[in-house]
Amino acid sequence: MACSMATRVALYEAGVSASFCEVDPKTKLTLDGQRYLDIHPLGLVPALRTDDDQLITENAAILQYVARRFPDAQLAPSDELGVARLQQWLCFIGTELHKAVFAPLLNPHAADAVKQYSLDKAAARLALLERHLQDREFLLDRFSVADAYLVTVLGWAVVTPIKLADYPALTRYLTALRTRPSVAKALAEEQRLYGLELARHRAA
Amino acid sequence: MACSMATRVALYEAGVSASFCEVDPKTKLTLDGQRYLDIHPLGLVPALRTDDDQLITENAAILQYVARRFPDAQLAPSDELGVARLQQWLCFIGTELHKAVFAPLLNPHAADAVKQYSLDKAAARLALLERHLQDREFLLDRFSVADAYLVTVLGWAVVTPIKLADYPALTRYLTALRTRPSVAKALAEEQRLYGLELARHRAA
Repeated sequence: MACSMATRVALYEAGVSASFCEVDPKTKLTLDGQRYLDIHPLGLVPALRTDDDQLITENAAILQYVARRFPDAQLAPSDELGVARLQQWLCFIGTELHKAVFAPLLNPHAADAVKQYSLDKAAARLALLERHLQDREFLLDRFSVADAYLVTVLGWAVVTPIKLADYPALTRYLTALRTRPSVAKALAEEQRLYGLELARHRAA
Repeated sequence: MACSMATRVALYEAGVSASFCEVDPKTKLTLDGQRYLDIHPLGLVPALRTDDDQLITENAAILQYVARRFPDAQLAPSDELGVARLQQWLCFIGTELHKAVFAPLLNPHAADAVKQYSLDKAAARLALLERHLQDREFLLDRFSVADAYLVTVLGWAVVTPIKLADYPALTRYLTALRTRPSVAKALAEEQRLYGLELARHRAA
């Protein structure tokens, strides 16, 4: 259910095989027993290891890498302005939504003042998205990796004080995207894994 | 001196002409009298208006647009892995440094708890960069728009509690880059404009 779910959606869209390896957020161990901090010193997911053993980190970079590697899936535009618009949305979601609003709200160790500071930023950012999605099915003209990222981030609202119901276009967008096969499959898989993680933590 | 300075550096590197329009951070008016919130509802700089009247926002998108539009300046790699590495650094600087660490530290309205939360994130992120730049002149094999962004962001440290002197590789990188003609010219120009802005605010 972390932002790495966006990459899972993109890989399902492309219909390619990939090995997924879960990182326990508490122990920072992968479920096959590696210290994830040896792989990524900040412990952030996702990290993608390519077939030729290159490690790529940072969500926007990985999503665009997947889109370029599997062009048949049409997960990113290729015209000059389309590329700029895709990068604009990926950057907006990563900086203004994910890091500025949601990351502190989801952090159990963040003080109330920190959460309030982030919450104060939410309305203007969600209103901008609400206007953009008013008469659109996707952020761009068709589904792209930016939608894979946005559907993941908006899904976090339910465990924060943010009420998505106040944003009808966003609610409609999220509801519709969750019926898309790649998103539905990724969500079901990650919900199952999240349930197992909670059970593991209870047992520990 | 905002993150829009990175775009100025990139345009100077490309040697192309562009009109720059300053936004007063207090009034959110442009110096030629437009309401900037009508141009960008969040009031964030930079925003780039192209010759065919398209408005592009978000730093990482604008920097990559400039790099693609002026390929002779070689401001971005074109090979598959190089593109991924560029996007990885742009995303890291934008999310982990700019938004997670520096934006709250630079905000005069952020509470002490918010600033401390951001400051606590600084060491691990700067240490990651320090290791990467240990034996490198640039983030990638040659100067790229990611360096234009990083030199801008690291320049902010001086008005925060972050001591760049604790990071010798970062200090050397920043010192060297500031002698690069595009960076030196952008810095001199923005320092001049910043001085005028402070004088305007004092007079107001």
